[in-house]
Amino acid sequence: MIQHLNDLQEMETRYRANFVNSLSGFKSLSLIGTRSVQGNNNLSLVSSVIHLGSDPALCGFVIRPNIETENTLGNIVQTRVYTINHVQKSFYMQAHQCSAKYPPGVSEFDQTGLHPAFCNGIAAPFVAESSVRFACHLLEKIDIQWNKTYFLIGQIIYAMVDDAFVSPDGFIDLQKAATLTVSGLDGYHSTTHLARLSYAKVGKPVTRINSNLAD
Amino acid sequence: MIQHLNDLQEMETRYRANFVNSLSGFKSLSLIGTRSVQGNNNLSLVSSVIHLGSDPALCGFVIRPNIETENTLGNIVQTRVYTINHVQKSFYMQAHQCSAKYPPGVSEFDQTGLHPAFCNGIAAPFVAESSVRFACHLLEKIDIQWNKTYFLIGQIIYAMVDDAFVSPDGFIDLQKAATLTVSGLDGYHSTTHLARLSYAKVGKPVTRINSNLAD
Repeated sequence: MIQHLNDLQEMETRYRANFVNSLSGFKSLSLIGTRSVQGNNNLSLVSSVIHLGSDPALCGFVIRPNIETENTLGNIVQTRVYTINHVQKSFYMQAHQCSAKYPPGVSEFDQTGLHPAFCNGIAAPFVAESSVRFACHLLEKIDIQWNKTYFLIGQIIYAMVDDAFVSPDGFIDLQKAATLTVSGLDGYHSTTHLARLSYAKVGKPVTRINSNLAD
Repeated sequence: MIQHLNDLQEMETRYRANFVNSLSGFKSLSLIGTRSVQGNNNLSLVSSVIHLGSDPALCGFVIRPNIETENTLGNIVQTRVYTINHVQKSFYMQAHQCSAKYPPGVSEFDQTGLHPAFCNGIAAPFVAESSVRFACHLLEKIDIQWNKTYFLIGQIIYAMVDDAFVSPDGFIDLQKAATLTVSGLDGYHSTTHLARLSYAKVGKPVTRINSNLAD
C-alpha cells in the first residue's frame, strides 16, 4: 500500500497509531523506575529508549505528558534520577499492564506484582525481575514543539548486568538475557541471533566475526 | 557485573562502545537515503530511528557528524527530504557495508549493489530492496550539546508497505516483512512473534488479542 501525506492525515486515529508506530521499526522495551520525593515508587513502560553516545555514556527517551506518565515525568524532573530496566519474556505481560492509567500515588509495582530493588544508594527503584538494568541522571529535558512531548537525555551512572551475558569485548548478549523487542503499539517479539558483523571498511567485504554469543 | 560511573569512564574505548551501545536494548535498523543538490545519492545505516507521534506522523533519529554521515547530514539540511528504509535479512550485510567511511561523492548504492528507487516525485532515493520504506520532511535539527550530535525530527510524508504486511487495524507485521533489529554496534537479529497484547486498563488483566499475524 502507498500512503501519501493526505492518506496519513485522513486515517482513523487508532489505525494511524498502529500504522505509524510500526513504521519506525523494532523498538527497545524498557520499564522506567522512579520514586517521588514523598517515597512513592512508579513504573512506566516505554519503547523509545535510544543510545546517544558511549563517551560520556548517554541515552534518551521520549515521554508524552499524560495521566500514565505524570508521576514518572514529575519524579524525574524533581529527583533527576531514574532507572531503565529491560523487559524480558518472563514478565512482559506485567510490564504491559504498567501502561494502564493508574491514578497518581498508585504504584505499578503493587498493581503488577513486579518487585522494586534498591542498589548503591540510587534513589529510584530498579525492577528486581529484570536482568539488564541501569540508572541515569537527567541532564536535559528537550521540548518537542511539534507534538508537545519531551525528549529526556540522561547520563548512565550505574549498570547491573549478569556476567553471563557480557562478552569479552563488552557486547551484551540481549538475546541470551531474554530481552524483548516491541513493534507497533503492542506487538512483542523475542529475537534470533543472525550474526555479529566486522567493522565495515572501504573496499573490504563484511564478514561475520567470532563471537561466543552465536547460537 | 556492576558498573559504577567510574567503571564506565575507565573502560577501554571499544569495550565501552560495545557495552553502552548494548544497554539501550534492541534497536531499529534503517538505511537513510538522501540525494545532494548535485544529484549524488547517499545511504547511511542508522539504528536510532524512533517513533515520536502519529498525529502528526513524526519520527526522529540521532546523527553524529563525521565522514560517514557528512553527505547524509548535509543533504538532509539542504534538501530537507530523506527516506527511511527498513533493513531486511536479504540485504543486511550490504546495509552494514554502508557504514564504511566512503569519501564524499561516492555513492553507497554503487559500492554495495543496493538499488535506488524514486517514487512520487520525492527527491531522495528509496532502497529498492526494502519492503517497508517511507519519506520524511525535516522539521527540526536539535543540537545535543552533551556529545555534539544532532536529533533530527521529520514528518512522515509518504509510506510504501506491501499490503501483505498490513493488518486490518493498521499494525504492520515487521516480522513477516523480515525487518531486522540490531543490538550493540554490530549484532543482527531476526524476531519471533510472541503476542499482541490488549490495551492495558486499570483492574483488567492483559490478554493476547486476536491477530492474523501470529504464527
